[in-house]
Amino acid sequence: MNPKSLLERRLASMGSAYRLFYDEPVHLVRGEGAWLFDADGRRYLDMYNNVPHVGHCHPRVVAAICDQARQLNSHTRYLHDNVVRLAERLTAKMPAALDTAMFCCTGSEANELALRIARRVTGATGIVVVDYAYHGNTQATYEISTDTIPPEEVPPWVATVPAPDTYRGPHRGESAGERYAAHVAEAIDKLQRRGVKTAAFVIDTIVSSSGVVAPPPGYLARVADIVRRAGGLFVADEVQPGFGRTGKNFWGFEAGRFEPDIVTMGKPMGNGHPLSAVVTRREIVDAFAGHGRYFNTFGGNPVSCAAGLAVLDVIAEEGLQQNALEVGAYLADGLWRLADSHECIGDVRGTGLFLAVELVADRETKTPATDLADKVVNGLRSRGVLTGSIGPADNILKLRSPLVLSKDDADYFLDTLGEVLPLLP
Amino acid sequence: MNPKSLLERRLASMGSAYRLFYDEPVHLVRGEGAWLFDADGRRYLDMYNNVPHVGHCHPRVVAAICDQARQLNSHTRYLHDNVVRLAERLTAKMPAALDTAMFCCTGSEANELALRIARRVTGATGIVVVDYAYHGNTQATYEISTDTIPPEEVPPWVATVPAPDTYRGPHRGESAGERYAAHVAEAIDKLQRRGVKTAAFVIDTIVSSSGVVAPPPGYLARVADIVRRAGGLFVADEVQPGFGRTGKNFWGFEAGRFEPDIVTMGKPMGNGHPLSAVVTRREIVDAFAGHGRYFNTFGGNPVSCAAGLAVLDVIAEEGLQQNALEVGAYLADGLWRLADSHECIGDVRGTGLFLAVELVADRETKTPATDLADKVVNGLRSRGVLTGSIGPADNILKLRSPLVLSKDDADYFLDTLGEVLPLLP
Repeated sequence: MNPKSLLERRLASMGSAYRLFYDEPVHLVRGEGAWLFDADGRRYLDMYNNVPHVGHCHPRVVAAICDQARQLNSHTRYLHDNVVRLAERLTAKMPAALDTAMFCCTGSEANELALRIARRVTGATGIVVVDYAYHGNTQATYEISTDTIPPEEVPPWVATVPAPDTYRGPHRGESAGERYAAHVAEAIDKLQRRGVKTAAFVIDTIVSSSGVVAPPPGYLARVADIVRRAGGLFVADEVQPGFGRTGKNFWGFEAGRFEPDIVTMGKPMGNGHPLSAVVTRREIVDAFAGHGRYFNTFGGNPVSCAAGLAVLDVIAEEGLQQNALEVGAYLADGLWRLADSHECIGDVRGTGLFLAVELVADRETKTPATDLADKVVNGLRSRGVLTGSIGPADNILKLRSPLVLSKDDADYFLDTLGEVLPLLP
Repeated sequence: MNPKSLLERRLASMGSAYRLFYDEPVHLVRGEGAWLFDADGRRYLDMYNNVPHVGHCHPRVVAAICDQARQLNSHTRYLHDNVVRLAERLTAKMPAALDTAMFCCTGSEANELALRIARRVTGATGIVVVDYAYHGNTQATYEISTDTIPPEEVPPWVATVPAPDTYRGPHRGESAGERYAAHVAEAIDKLQRRGVKTAAFVIDTIVSSSGVVAPPPGYLARVADIVRRAGGLFVADEVQPGFGRTGKNFWGFEAGRFEPDIVTMGKPMGNGHPLSAVVTRREIVDAFAGHGRYFNTFGGNPVSCAAGLAVLDVIAEEGLQQNALEVGAYLADGLWRLADSHECIGDVRGTGLFLAVELVADRETKTPATDLADKVVNGLRSRGVLTGSIGPADNILKLRSPLVLSKDDADYFLDTLGEVLPLLP
């Protein structure tokens, strides 16, 4: 099958709402560890995909899926060990009060459930989110995905605040956390003036689509106070930062030294198998359950939970959180060294294997180098490295490789990036 | 692990929003064909679960999942054969105009996407649904799930019509289709009077949670006309009736001799692996795509699509649609024979392996025998047969076994049901 004809067949059968990465799309057929292979046998270092968290096709996860798929796949209206064990293992990784897990299949579904719970429990409808956030593709999550929804479509029950970005945003320095948090109080007041009470503040604790922004010290805890005083709940969307990616902590929210009320998780949870969850406090679930039950046909099935359990085992046994910390630091150092000789690198940020390289036309004005980012992403692709760009101006390289990335892999990436950057105007 | 302690651990880690089937919950550990086995080695005939469509743990589907999981699991922003082949195979099973497939992970997500597409393309928000419908667990699908949402919570953009039930509803006889369809015109007018234009009529083409109601002749086609004249689209929810379950047709809507505008599918599509889809016309997707792209991280991944392809292969190669037709007719005959000697059987209906037995206290008044249905379901469970009850009064046995059910299995079920019914008051 040549890629062009596959491309034509894809457009004919799947239509125009799907997009493909890269000017010359990649036709992948195999994955192993941090590496992907195309139909012509070419290999690519995967610096982009956070879903294959413990490495593409990790044999332990594959075996767990296959073993369970041969035994039984059913649903949560019968008893099964796997879903209970996964609920116990996940809640054990959380602060003690976050003791109850519920299961879905995707991050969108987890955020949908979090919104339904928050609104039901508070009796309020208002949601505060940061600019350029992404939380899902369903209607209720689309409404709070400010990177996707056009401003004129944002419903009156949604209010936005600036992402707590200390590189590009209005506030920096010691008071940045406090000053960014003040925007949340303003947003709550704004909703109140529209007659809308606040049900929740929702944020990915490393703000990914806004540009891999790590909130400044004190921000998350202060926001949680503000939101709770207004009667709302704090929802930490751990779909991207969770499961040890940041190296220092297992969950992104732990860096903020506070406890969210509801935590959602997805992407890496099953290493590619559709699996997601909501973890919250017992009394919140009880208040929600007082108004009705929750059932998700595939959510929490024994095969999906086997995948989830294997992912937790592999992270622990292979020391992948520690690897993310060490290789992430090594990679960040290398990127800063590249910045010494490449004026176009305006900022390197992030933690663990959740890094961003901001490309700028000018370091003083910080003018986003959008076209350059596109050329770099495509230049890396043609040299066997897969990345992508994000951010409001699409000028930020997003680096979220599988956690098995080695220092050799990091060197390969840094060398290739070094080759691509000087070739460009 | 004894079931009681597992039950306690489940409640402790998963909370109170989950329910379990049966007074004495079943702790399942293995499945094969139409049979399930519990932790004590007891076997159960599965007369309930429509998700393991081609049989529990079908080796062909398991092998497809395992083979692909070992090779690659990624997403639709790279080219891959599997998703294109599945899109081609699904659209080939549809009327020619329904030529475009999009992929999600659950029925809720498929219905969410259908609603988003319908609202975007029509520029309207109103949705008409039947009473006691179930279309999902996300906010937008909860709003149209009239079997779940309390009437006072139904938003003003949703209007309901009676399910086209010719056993219990107001209309029967030759004109029933036309008279039930007239309610849809009234609902559209009602929305219009509220200032709401109709975006879509949504129905599962065998109305499952309303009581396995097959629409009377002419109903679906007439409703489609009415909805289109009002500027709306017809969404056929094939999550339950699709994939040959009704025996006569591959899709439930085919019995209505008309073409829907959007078709959604889920549950049986991956034989338990989370996989769902929306199929619609090219120009509808184009109009939707004009306002933005669609991406679902896990939707359409190579492993899920391998499962979907294997399910289509097995249905065809093992003649399962034909088996559903034959064994379903055999089962329905047996149920009618049981009705000869059991006054409590008020109606037997459905087609293929999508059957319902309505239990009544009195055949003339049709008073629902809700308590009896509960006793029958639990009595069957204790004798090794799994079923469930549904309907507005929860008095209807829902029979939706895997399509591999044999005549011997059907005899076993009929014998057991015969044992349970006379023992009861």
